[in-house]
Amino acid sequence: MQTRWSERFAQRTRGMRSSAVRELLKLTEQPDVISFGGGLPAPEVFPVEKFREACDRVLEGDGSRALQYSTTEGYRPLREMIARHASRLGVGIDADNVLLTSGSQQALDLIGKVFINPGDHLLVERPTYLGALQAWRTYQAEYACVSMDDDGMRTDEVEVQLRTGPKFIYALPNFQNPSGVTLSVERRHRLIQLADHYGVPILEDDPYGQLRYEGEHLPSLVLLDGRREENNGPSYRGNVIYLSTFSKTLAPGMRLGWIIAPAEVIQRLVQAKQGADLHSSTFAQMVTYEVARGGFLDQHVKFIRATYKERRDAMLHALETHFPDGVTWTRPLGGLFLWVRFPVEMDAADVLEVAIGQKVAFVPGQPFFPDGSGANTARFNFSYCKPETIEEGIRRLGAVLKSLLKGARVAVGAREGAQVG
Amino acid sequence: MQTRWSERFAQRTRGMRSSAVRELLKLTEQPDVISFGGGLPAPEVFPVEKFREACDRVLEGDGSRALQYSTTEGYRPLREMIARHASRLGVGIDADNVLLTSGSQQALDLIGKVFINPGDHLLVERPTYLGALQAWRTYQAEYACVSMDDDGMRTDEVEVQLRTGPKFIYALPNFQNPSGVTLSVERRHRLIQLADHYGVPILEDDPYGQLRYEGEHLPSLVLLDGRREENNGPSYRGNVIYLSTFSKTLAPGMRLGWIIAPAEVIQRLVQAKQGADLHSSTFAQMVTYEVARGGFLDQHVKFIRATYKERRDAMLHALETHFPDGVTWTRPLGGLFLWVRFPVEMDAADVLEVAIGQKVAFVPGQPFFPDGSGANTARFNFSYCKPETIEEGIRRLGAVLKSLLKGARVAVGAREGAQVG
Repeated sequence: MQTRWSERFAQRTRGMRSSAVRELLKLTEQPDVISFGGGLPAPEVFPVEKFREACDRVLEGDGSRALQYSTTEGYRPLREMIARHASRLGVGIDADNVLLTSGSQQALDLIGKVFINPGDHLLVERPTYLGALQAWRTYQAEYACVSMDDDGMRTDEVEVQLRTGPKFIYALPNFQNPSGVTLSVERRHRLIQLADHYGVPILEDDPYGQLRYEGEHLPSLVLLDGRREENNGPSYRGNVIYLSTFSKTLAPGMRLGWIIAPAEVIQRLVQAKQGADLHSSTFAQMVTYEVARGGFLDQHVKFIRATYKERRDAMLHALETHFPDGVTWTRPLGGLFLWVRFPVEMDAADVLEVAIGQKVAFVPGQPFFPDGSGANTARFNFSYCKPETIEEGIRRLGAVLKSLLKGARVAVGAREGAQVG
Repeated sequence: MQTRWSERFAQRTRGMRSSAVRELLKLTEQPDVISFGGGLPAPEVFPVEKFREACDRVLEGDGSRALQYSTTEGYRPLREMIARHASRLGVGIDADNVLLTSGSQQALDLIGKVFINPGDHLLVERPTYLGALQAWRTYQAEYACVSMDDDGMRTDEVEVQLRTGPKFIYALPNFQNPSGVTLSVERRHRLIQLADHYGVPILEDDPYGQLRYEGEHLPSLVLLDGRREENNGPSYRGNVIYLSTFSKTLAPGMRLGWIIAPAEVIQRLVQAKQGADLHSSTFAQMVTYEVARGGFLDQHVKFIRATYKERRDAMLHALETHFPDGVTWTRPLGGLFLWVRFPVEMDAADVLEVAIGQKVAFVPGQPFFPDGSGANTARFNFSYCKPETIEEGIRRLGAVLKSLLKGARVAVGAREGAQVG
């Protein structure tokens, strides 16, 4: 028996149950399902032994510090390492421009806490990262959407939207989650210029920037913005707030990301973080620093790139082999995801339901669209499964799609027949 | 040079600089200052070697799981351990009633996210935990305050306040932070009864419950609420949401706390946590489970109790020896803090300023009062410094207080003299 309060609460929330898609995705956790649904790194690339050594070293050398409370800003040597790395790339910052967060997800939440008031609207790509939409729901954000093509966010649409006064522009320029698309260098320049002209900051979310499998590395927005300065050294103008993470290059289980922002913005974010979780795990920060330092991270990223390139190629090859005409997909140059478009009359949630019967899963694309469109799209992850598993999963999905398309043609034929009759 | 956007931001936030007290507290971080200011566990009690062994075992046995993303709810064996422990004490719950959080601070933030709408008022003790006020500022909470005496929250004041429809009652029944006061068993019963009658849930925050140094353990509110059921076994009625943490019994640097709540409430909190940080560190959860299991936690808490009892006694003894008449303090039965009351005309922030000149520090009490009162109060932590350091720090503070009181008497005398003249 429950009290009146908890009964009332249960009644009130009964209508707010997880969506049908969420329920379907739970089924994908069964071990015999081949899942392209998550955004998980391959467990094979985790540097487990390196972490073990780092734990030993941290606990032996400085154990009581690692287990104690620490500052909200984060472990200073790690902030300095991030600042040095950015400066080497041309972004002239120091540790005061860096806040360590409990994964990039917390960075999104803190940005929401500090910047978004109810009814504020944000300029986002369509589709955009679902985790950002989830984080900002609490702050009652609204959205102005900009379409994407193979060169990323369409900057010709951006200017019109900027005149409506969005709070900030949220952009994922590299191998975007979910679409896998990369913003061209011309559009990067144009976006920076427009944002500056209209006095609107850019939030650049870059979890995958280091995971490029072909082509040349493109300069980040934060770097291009700094280059608008008339000097030769590294610089930072503060119009771009930059997010990244150790989740894709070392280990998501540590929950460590970071924000690069003007020092005044960092101070406000620190106050918000103090109320949110005091600070991120001291131990996780010290261990991550110990693992990353001395050039290991750069070395390790090369290994990850090789592994994921093989898997991306396996997925692209399998798609070409097994998927029927009428289904299209993006060809990402890096990252973890590609984006599939089914024929417009097909609902990805329906496809998923049939696919799960064949023990294979993906994520329907609609939740990534703030405007509720995209019912015929889907996100496929290629980092988690091994190449042979990818081949098998795509083969099964291809068969599902072919049978659904055949069924649809039969149904259309029957309907047409009926009309003729 | 900064852009217009970041310049505007800097201008707007210039007036929001840290308070004078915060600036003073920064000075206490100097290594030669004796600080009673923080709420830090003694580094001497951290089971460093046990953590080292646990890291080895987790990474060797299940490394790629420990470094991977995991569920928002938390590591299931750890949730089950918490549920078993609660059930042994009589609170009949299972793992579905437990959410792991990034420290208790995150629990407060998530509770705010799910329950508090702008303008909602909460019933809180006066003084109350500062971290809760910080967490709930974002959600624009307002407060109805209930006075405290040596038996804790005055339940005679609670009923009047409950009629005004607060969203929930926030209570810290054991060795409250900041006052060190414990809620009597009679008042616990009365509080439960009132909350139930008015259909208002209680948020019981219990970070220090296991750290009692004298007297008998008192039943928690969540336990007493369950006992109102007409059965004999462990039960949970759901009118009390209960928070606790591993920060005071194992290590705050891991950032792990938990919430016990009705399963429907946990589901809502899980959604909120998903947007806030996806999940707490998988690695920290698995390592903490490995350290805590097999009875180690219970054993270790005994060692902590012995250490902190000695420090509490050292502080009480030093206060009696060195503090002047007119200054009073609480005698906590457990926890990390005691509460000092200076003469009403004395401002604790002024005392702190002089004290820092003598290389000793504490936290002024005013920020713990939602109504801005309490200028003559202060919180003293006794867990962090060793007994001989406590003695020396309190001796210095005693001298500061005596000189300030003497100065005040001279000033009063001069004013009275002037009036007479």
